[in-house]
Amino acid sequence: MHVVIPLYPRFTALDAVGPYTVLAFAPGFTVTFAAERPGPVTDDRGSLTLTATASYADVPAPDVVVVPGGPGTLDVLEDEALLGWIRQAHEHTRWTTSVCSGSLLLGAAGLLEGARATTHWALLDFLGNVGAEPVAERVVEHGRIVTAAGVSAGIDMALTLLARASDATTAQSVQLAIEYDPQPPFTCGSPRTAPEGLVERALAIIT
Amino acid sequence: MHVVIPLYPRFTALDAVGPYTVLAFAPGFTVTFAAERPGPVTDDRGSLTLTATASYADVPAPDVVVVPGGPGTLDVLEDEALLGWIRQAHEHTRWTTSVCSGSLLLGAAGLLEGARATTHWALLDFLGNVGAEPVAERVVEHGRIVTAAGVSAGIDMALTLLARASDATTAQSVQLAIEYDPQPPFTCGSPRTAPEGLVERALAIIT
Repeated sequence: MHVVIPLYPRFTALDAVGPYTVLAFAPGFTVTFAAERPGPVTDDRGSLTLTATASYADVPAPDVVVVPGGPGTLDVLEDEALLGWIRQAHEHTRWTTSVCSGSLLLGAAGLLEGARATTHWALLDFLGNVGAEPVAERVVEHGRIVTAAGVSAGIDMALTLLARASDATTAQSVQLAIEYDPQPPFTCGSPRTAPEGLVERALAIIT
Repeated sequence: MHVVIPLYPRFTALDAVGPYTVLAFAPGFTVTFAAERPGPVTDDRGSLTLTATASYADVPAPDVVVVPGGPGTLDVLEDEALLGWIRQAHEHTRWTTSVCSGSLLLGAAGLLEGARATTHWALLDFLGNVGAEPVAERVVEHGRIVTAAGVSAGIDMALTLLARASDATTAQSVQLAIEYDPQPPFTCGSPRTAPEGLVERALAIIT
């Protein structure tokens, strides 16, 4: 199973590396980071650079696509090199997926018309603009399109996907291998559970 | 607050990028990836390359050190460039931390003598070899040494650390910003909760 993760400037690192780690540990999976041109791509904080080893032209027919999000999403909403690749790759994939604002790119590529989909809580309303039905859930499956909520939700999405693509025991094995037994120190990771005033502080961090 | 994450060949990507994302989003924090020499460092799957932008000599006095783990840990247990840097950086840090097998490197540097510490569940017994008291908890604080369990535990560790280094509200803001409201698809992320036979399958993945 060949997974391709496209990178673009100012992506959010965990959006890409969460699903990457899950899928790269899965037996029989290989993961390739791609960009318009191979080379270094720097994240939204400006302090982490990942290497894209393939161009989009090098990977026309992946089995799985994982589109990460990040502040840079807004700069590539009309980038036909990326959107065109997503569109044509989707003709070949078994699953086309996104994390965080990555779903806006699936939408901009025309893949979310009438689809149930999710994104980061701060952007949920924008999904309507690309024809999707926004759903405030952590992982949303709509046929072979799977979207995840913000940043860290990509880990849950990738494990869910792996259970479909392989089997539940394989996904469980990877979950145990990466010791994914989360114990967040606070109960505030969603606007539904966050104490009053926290949404404004979180928005100040991400915008 | 200056955080340095040392990279070495065959580290596990999420060990580094989980804490990185948490701390890089924190107001007033900057994070630098370092290695013996600046340049690309490739992970344990061979398919993700991160760029170290500093040498160890460039970052002698960080406020926080986060040492990631991975299969490559075993190859650097006697690497004096890395161990010597950890040892002398620890003289300056407010917190010296690790994820997964990274704690074996803290131990090899001589920092865990008599300390309560943790690591990936598969390696817990090895901590005794470096003089530590192994503790099967997700995040273990022993003075200014903070160790995390396997791979994904670095996210919980970094949020715990951030609450100490800044305040609880700041840590909560970052937790909400990265939508860390985990909903793992299975309850099997620890040997305590994993169904029978899964430990052997997970070990086959990571070894």
